[in-house]
Amino acid sequence: MIYLDNAATTKPDWESCEKAQAYLTEKFYNPSALYREGHALQSELKKARSVLLSRVASETDFEAVFTSCGTEADNQAIFGFARRGNAITTLGEHSAVGVAFAELKNRGICEPRFAPLRKDGSVDIEKLLALVDEKTSFVSVIHVNNETGTINDINQIAKAVKTKNPRVIFHSDGVQAYGKIPFRLAKEIDLYSVSAHKIGGLKGVGALIKRKSLVLPPYIIGGGQESGRRSGTENTFGIKQFEYAAEKKFSALKADYERILTYRERFWELLDKEIFLRLSPENGSPYILSVSALGLRGEILLHMANDRGVIVGTGSACSSNAKNRYSKVVLACGHDERTADGVLRVSFSSSTSEEDVEKGADVLNAVAKELKNRMK
Amino acid sequence: MIYLDNAATTKPDWESCEKAQAYLTEKFYNPSALYREGHALQSELKKARSVLLSRVASETDFEAVFTSCGTEADNQAIFGFARRGNAITTLGEHSAVGVAFAELKNRGICEPRFAPLRKDGSVDIEKLLALVDEKTSFVSVIHVNNETGTINDINQIAKAVKTKNPRVIFHSDGVQAYGKIPFRLAKEIDLYSVSAHKIGGLKGVGALIKRKSLVLPPYIIGGGQESGRRSGTENTFGIKQFEYAAEKKFSALKADYERILTYRERFWELLDKEIFLRLSPENGSPYILSVSALGLRGEILLHMANDRGVIVGTGSACSSNAKNRYSKVVLACGHDERTADGVLRVSFSSSTSEEDVEKGADVLNAVAKELKNRMK
Repeated sequence: MIYLDNAATTKPDWESCEKAQAYLTEKFYNPSALYREGHALQSELKKARSVLLSRVASETDFEAVFTSCGTEADNQAIFGFARRGNAITTLGEHSAVGVAFAELKNRGICEPRFAPLRKDGSVDIEKLLALVDEKTSFVSVIHVNNETGTINDINQIAKAVKTKNPRVIFHSDGVQAYGKIPFRLAKEIDLYSVSAHKIGGLKGVGALIKRKSLVLPPYIIGGGQESGRRSGTENTFGIKQFEYAAEKKFSALKADYERILTYRERFWELLDKEIFLRLSPENGSPYILSVSALGLRGEILLHMANDRGVIVGTGSACSSNAKNRYSKVVLACGHDERTADGVLRVSFSSSTSEEDVEKGADVLNAVAKELKNRMK
Repeated sequence: MIYLDNAATTKPDWESCEKAQAYLTEKFYNPSALYREGHALQSELKKARSVLLSRVASETDFEAVFTSCGTEADNQAIFGFARRGNAITTLGEHSAVGVAFAELKNRGICEPRFAPLRKDGSVDIEKLLALVDEKTSFVSVIHVNNETGTINDINQIAKAVKTKNPRVIFHSDGVQAYGKIPFRLAKEIDLYSVSAHKIGGLKGVGALIKRKSLVLPPYIIGGGQESGRRSGTENTFGIKQFEYAAEKKFSALKADYERILTYRERFWELLDKEIFLRLSPENGSPYILSVSALGLRGEILLHMANDRGVIVGTGSACSSNAKNRYSKVVLACGHDERTADGVLRVSFSSSTSEEDVEKGADVLNAVAKELKNRMK
């Protein structure tokens, strides 16, 4: 089976699982315990925090709070800081941000505002800035869009937003960027969400990176773990495995980036241009190639490819439960429903091989042709 | 090292970890994905849900929603249902409930009311019922107290509460009960929180069991996983390992219960009665024996025992971060600060041996005597 849905989840890095195994066996203790064996785990969590943070931000200015997933990190940021007045995000967000913003209205917390996208899937910065006013408490802009791979220049956007209103708290969902694209957080970013399972870590582990001077309200409260910012016994195995997996990813980040970039372009080169329209911009994340098989249904192609041993996605796996047939993000880019209906998302990981790329593209071409013929 | 702090966390059951290993390797897919390999995981999650639920409740009337921990399950119940008017809990709750109730007041959601405890650590039912009125939206009573092991008859309490006000939503934190004491949920219970890592599961996995007809508001929102009740990619490895670990625990529940009961009594029998006062009632959970070394500091004894190869707790590991020196629960039982200062919690698991019990009690006697002599 050729797996090309790495934006949905990646296979856990087995070496990191093995390395972290001790946290399931001899180091199984509760890190909040007072005895030596428990307390020692605090410094191991500290080490993980440092490794995971230092690759994207200055340890002088930022710190990391572990959460149970990227969604929780997004929710904690949004419900922690969106206040009276308005809060702004984009039409190109993962549902962990998009649905939470809609909820701000339902709960009567504040007015959510949604900035439109440009054709390439990036937020229209001018229009975003036009939404910022004196009453804006919070702005959230996705770093790398999970459906198209489009990169928003969040450092630049945060600076522009804060020039207009310095009191705004700026957040970015970095789940598809972290460990994949070269990047460091500018000091204008207040909060940044990351997830383990998109880069060889485990499901059930994430982190919210925060500016140190920002007081982060807890979202899950109780025993006061994570310095009172996230209660619940720390997931030591998951956190240490995340540290090890991230260390590997970041060490190879640049080499992987270049290689995957050639794969993405090779994949596109191999696709039949009479059938497929490219949605992902050239300057987007190399890990995501989103295309549309015009006039065909992406979901049917996905199943046909699946039968032939190739796994791709249609859009966000996280919204496949939803009733919406069409990707909101693709529509927000200005594409019509016919285009949105044919979307296939091909997403790579550092373990993708050239052979996967060639076979993957061949199969997509074949199943699209077959479906097209069937429909004649 | 003899580990007698199993109420803080237990060593993950290795056999269950190995059995669940496939979810880290060939079955690593995103369960929300549309292709066969991803979708197949939904039925494996369904199986886990059924196994974990059916041992404590009727599958006709109840269902389980997976969360990242017991604390999240408690928070979801409380913030989902405590509404205008008042919400009632006890002075004997884990901080995941106690602190969340205090937060209800801070956030101006409703008035939290705290029912007092009896000397044995159980809630004073008459006084709890006296707090229930027409404006009560929510009542939460811990099933097995995590510090003393005291069992509240939650089925009975829920019935009495609902007789007084049928509109109340009744929740119980079952983290220290689940998989340890024989029990089935009465239909008057609306919500019940459980955690994996207290019974050989992993940290980072929990569940909120709910009455099927109750509409549970999500607490973590986004992609709509768990039928919209808990967003975030499902922790398949953690959930399946929980299923396997729980299956083992429940199969041996009665035999373990009897054996551990003799251990608890044997431990108490061996302790020097001139030093130790027993706090745990005889009819409490056999897994917890809480004692106080009168006139001595529990924390010092814990470290001394640790040096001699025996690990015990002082109270809740989850509140060891807190500034409070004295256990609030022990004070709420009517004990004085001197008693609360000397608390040691000895907690067993199904892998505790008779030798652990004998050596554990010997070491506690020895260090208490040593500290007493030192203080003369």
